[in-house]
Amino acid sequence: MTTTLNPRRTIDELKELRALTGDENGAQRVAFTPVWVRTRAWLREKLEALPVEVHTDAAGNLWATLRGESERALLIGGHMDSVPNGGWLDGCLNVLAGLEILRRLNDQYRGRPPVTVRLVDWADEEGARFGKSLFGSSACSGNLDMNEARTLRDKQGVCLPDALLEVGIEFERAKESGVELNHAAAYLELHIEQGPVLLDLDLPLGAVLGTFGVQRHAIVFKGQAAHSGSTPMNRRRDAFLAAGKMAQEIYRIAEKHGGVCTIGSCTTKPGIVTSVVEECRITLDQRHLDGAALAAMLADARAASERFAREGNVQVNWERLWEIAPMPFHPELIDACDVAIEETCGVSHRLPSGPLHDAAEVARAGVPTVMMFVQSLHGISHNKIEDTKEEHLELCVRAFDRLADKTIAWIGGAK
Amino acid sequence: MTTTLNPRRTIDELKELRALTGDENGAQRVAFTPVWVRTRAWLREKLEALPVEVHTDAAGNLWATLRGESERALLIGGHMDSVPNGGWLDGCLNVLAGLEILRRLNDQYRGRPPVTVRLVDWADEEGARFGKSLFGSSACSGNLDMNEARTLRDKQGVCLPDALLEVGIEFERAKESGVELNHAAAYLELHIEQGPVLLDLDLPLGAVLGTFGVQRHAIVFKGQAAHSGSTPMNRRRDAFLAAGKMAQEIYRIAEKHGGVCTIGSCTTKPGIVTSVVEECRITLDQRHLDGAALAAMLADARAASERFAREGNVQVNWERLWEIAPMPFHPELIDACDVAIEETCGVSHRLPSGPLHDAAEVARAGVPTVMMFVQSLHGISHNKIEDTKEEHLELCVRAFDRLADKTIAWIGGAK
Repeated sequence: MTTTLNPRRTIDELKELRALTGDENGAQRVAFTPVWVRTRAWLREKLEALPVEVHTDAAGNLWATLRGESERALLIGGHMDSVPNGGWLDGCLNVLAGLEILRRLNDQYRGRPPVTVRLVDWADEEGARFGKSLFGSSACSGNLDMNEARTLRDKQGVCLPDALLEVGIEFERAKESGVELNHAAAYLELHIEQGPVLLDLDLPLGAVLGTFGVQRHAIVFKGQAAHSGSTPMNRRRDAFLAAGKMAQEIYRIAEKHGGVCTIGSCTTKPGIVTSVVEECRITLDQRHLDGAALAAMLADARAASERFAREGNVQVNWERLWEIAPMPFHPELIDACDVAIEETCGVSHRLPSGPLHDAAEVARAGVPTVMMFVQSLHGISHNKIEDTKEEHLELCVRAFDRLADKTIAWIGGAK
Repeated sequence: MTTTLNPRRTIDELKELRALTGDENGAQRVAFTPVWVRTRAWLREKLEALPVEVHTDAAGNLWATLRGESERALLIGGHMDSVPNGGWLDGCLNVLAGLEILRRLNDQYRGRPPVTVRLVDWADEEGARFGKSLFGSSACSGNLDMNEARTLRDKQGVCLPDALLEVGIEFERAKESGVELNHAAAYLELHIEQGPVLLDLDLPLGAVLGTFGVQRHAIVFKGQAAHSGSTPMNRRRDAFLAAGKMAQEIYRIAEKHGGVCTIGSCTTKPGIVTSVVEECRITLDQRHLDGAALAAMLADARAASERFAREGNVQVNWERLWEIAPMPFHPELIDACDVAIEETCGVSHRLPSGPLHDAAEVARAGVPTVMMFVQSLHGISHNKIEDTKEEHLELCVRAFDRLADKTIAWIGGAK
């Protein structure tokens, strides 16, 4: 069945891409920049060898379509864009593994597979330049907040619509890309894990259950500035004391509910060595695959912050920064992914995805979706040290290819 | 004895000064600025009514000398400079109460008191512009670190020697001001408390035991940045968690040893909502009147930080920012101060000073020293809301005047 699949070629192409678009600090394929445009040209060259129709949609997503017996389509996706100084696999592994599967299917079915197969390179998954991820896929899914996106600016003050125009994308028409999902029957995405779960289990591959829901808040404790030398300890209204208690409490909350909680930043006012902290602002990021559990984690954190505020005679205020609901993947496709992994390397593991992915947007649009993760050597992403063993890269291409076959069969059966 | 003492006049002069040198945000008498120069001119006008010799020493301290029968001198000091947006009493109450006492002594002794009496307005007590307090008094005491002070710059990049030159002070000669202490037999300073101790005890006045020793450090915890969504809680090396534990621990340490400990600032790197904190830097200010207890507080904090670092698999490094030994005041003058307060308002209280004062520098130079504190209404200083009841202001001038008389007698007895 996979006689012509060549995972080595995928690895060679990843290295070719790294040489073309990376430097000593890592990958530099930031969306809508000249390096990203060059990356896309390179990808189009690779696609020219196949009998696929290639076009860019209204949101700047690149589609390569191999027409099949049915117009019902299997979508395979990824993103060629990276963060600045990014890793060599994040996003492009997905696309290049998909490219290899297109080649295999084209060979096997002599240019006419049972269902239509489409490879998509989503535009600006990372959101590195404008601080807002999943532009292309959320435009396509219809979830993009146009009013918010219209006003986004990069560090140079360039707004998103102007940056898009430079690469030929008309911002106001971005949601017209939604037509691309008209005949979508399933969506598959391979990705490097970006965490240490598979590494700790010493497993090469995992089937992804869905993406975490996220509750993201700023918590501001407000006490009273007071001289560090003249203010008795029992008279203090110390905003940092309350924030410090939260640092430990979030570990208890995460353990109780089985999610993750992170305090990522802390700022203090007046923030001088000779004063008790008057105002302390921390950010809290909470994630869980289950919506009810996520809500319970948030409620616990709120209650704890109010308790600590009372104990320290300070005030506390919460400000919502962002939230997104959990996005569970399709149960039958998760099963198929599990089986494809087991058939390839003997053992599989199911895990949620902490980070968001384009797959979550496609799933949110109602397309049956699943992702496959491959082990990350250091459990680290968005960094030049991101890496995966070559034997694992080969395994992931093989397992993902098996998943494609199973999904084509599943689409056929569901027809 | 105090027939001509007029505390009401002191209050009126304080209000006159407030109108002349403050605005809606508070006092603006920052050292070496035009407002400070105007303040000094105003003070010189007040002194012109007295048969005193007035001059500025090599460090910019202003001295008014009323020659006595003996050249042995009672010094009464304060500082006319304020922080930006400061309180109306901090520093200038001391000087103006001293001025009133000079008037009373001049009247009583017809221009020739038993000992020489000198009023000093120290230059740049606050250190608001160059970040280093006690310039004038530490130059005079000989403790000023010339190499450090020479390189201090304000926010505009102006260095201290250049700023001094603009008001006629030659930096390199500042320590020549030490000659002013040649015949000093005692030093007295009145000050608003800057804390809530007397307020809580509902007492107008207190005798100060000395100034706290200070140990001031930056503590840097270093862990590992990791994605907030993909990193399991038990895999984290969270620098903020360790810092948060310190927030509570310093309260235990302060209680155990009877001093004060303050974490005044906290900064986080990378400091973004989607990453575990890699590096967290906090400042720790510890103060105690007893040197051994101060050393024990420091040792406890170090041990705790190392324990928290081990628990969280992070590293910790300490960096000394500043330190100063405790400076106990003179036991016999503390007794005299206590008695002067009791005679004036029936009850006294002894307390240490958390903040530093010029008095600590004079004491360090070997001059017998004591301070008197008057209650602060909100326990707050360095703020426009700083205030003291007028009846307490009257009491403090009266008690401080009594202390001056007792100290003159003490100097005579010790001769």
